[in-house]
Amino acid sequence: MPNVTLYPLENYTFGAKDAQPEEDSSVAARLKRLENDYETQGMRRTVEAVMVVHQHNHPHVLMLQIANAFFKLPGHYLQPGVDEREGLKNILNERLGAADPNEWANEPQWEIGECLSTWWRPNFESYMYPYIPAHVTKPKEKKTLYLVHMPPNKVLTVPKNMKVLAIPLFEVYDNAARYGAQLSAIPHLLSRYDFEYKPM
Amino acid sequence: MPNVTLYPLENYTFGAKDAQPEEDSSVAARLKRLENDYETQGMRRTVEAVMVVHQHNHPHVLMLQIANAFFKLPGHYLQPGVDEREGLKNILNERLGAADPNEWANEPQWEIGECLSTWWRPNFESYMYPYIPAHVTKPKEKKTLYLVHMPPNKVLTVPKNMKVLAIPLFEVYDNAARYGAQLSAIPHLLSRYDFEYKPM
Repeated sequence: MPNVTLYPLENYTFGAKDAQPEEDSSVAARLKRLENDYETQGMRRTVEAVMVVHQHNHPHVLMLQIANAFFKLPGHYLQPGVDEREGLKNILNERLGAADPNEWANEPQWEIGECLSTWWRPNFESYMYPYIPAHVTKPKEKKTLYLVHMPPNKVLTVPKNMKVLAIPLFEVYDNAARYGAQLSAIPHLLSRYDFEYKPM
Repeated sequence: MPNVTLYPLENYTFGAKDAQPEEDSSVAARLKRLENDYETQGMRRTVEAVMVVHQHNHPHVLMLQIANAFFKLPGHYLQPGVDEREGLKNILNERLGAADPNEWANEPQWEIGECLSTWWRPNFESYMYPYIPAHVTKPKEKKTLYLVHMPPNKVLTVPKNMKVLAIPLFEVYDNAARYGAQLSAIPHLLSRYDFEYKPM
């Protein structure tokens, strides 16, 4: 089993920076823009980060909570031609790095690890699947989840309209009602790793 | 993304051999034997195979159906000290290899690939989790699912009390009601692979 080192949540400190509003004001607007972008750029590629820490030797996944409501992983779609891992590193810095981009290079780095899973959007609709559905030849979006190895310590600077929460695996597991199909599957995806829990 | 080659279901032919009855006549008997074995041998290690083929370029997982009722993956628990991959190879031969064990060496071989997931049984009870629950220091059973790379062709010789069914991912996905928590998670576990679909 591949080994992953986890550090305690207490090793990370949290700062604040200016709000980063959602690009789209509604799900309908988001799907409409996806459709428009598809016309010119083809299939959208989205990357998201599964960042794992521990509390009392139980893995916790870092999630963003937007407007005290829904949860999501840090991530974003990529511009055409951008490498997935390099792109994700930039996205994580924009979302959780220092307010001043000039400082990103001096901060402890995230290391983008293995692909954990892939989700496909067959139509300009909300549904995504962890496989390409039968008869679908032109998916509209591919979302890839990467395991991100956290540095031992780091300041996470969080946009003011978001919170970072460390959610334990036992809370996410079998809880699609609260976390949705994608987040509630994360315990399955992580189960093949052997976690090494570092003390503070 | 790692690449996996899938061959069409039609490449495999199915024979029959003597029935292989379940070792235990009830869930209670099975858990009782797990408890007895734990006293002398410690944590039970179980290995199971995720064998994937395709039909019309959609992945299908080979499952055993017992007595026209429940589904399970080919697999079994291991005796203490047995290597997991070597053990799984023998288990697959016993279950699906030729009736005469002397012929196993002449048949096309299964190749035991990566660990896909791990399930833990914290108590002598039915529930298993894809993580070690908090405060559990001595799990009673660890079940590991391996991706098994199928040879391009093979005769699968099936015990008379079982059927082998190729179940499409879209049927298993989000269908814990029929397939249970473990089997219905397989589409998630496979989503990080890039499948290459070979013709007949």
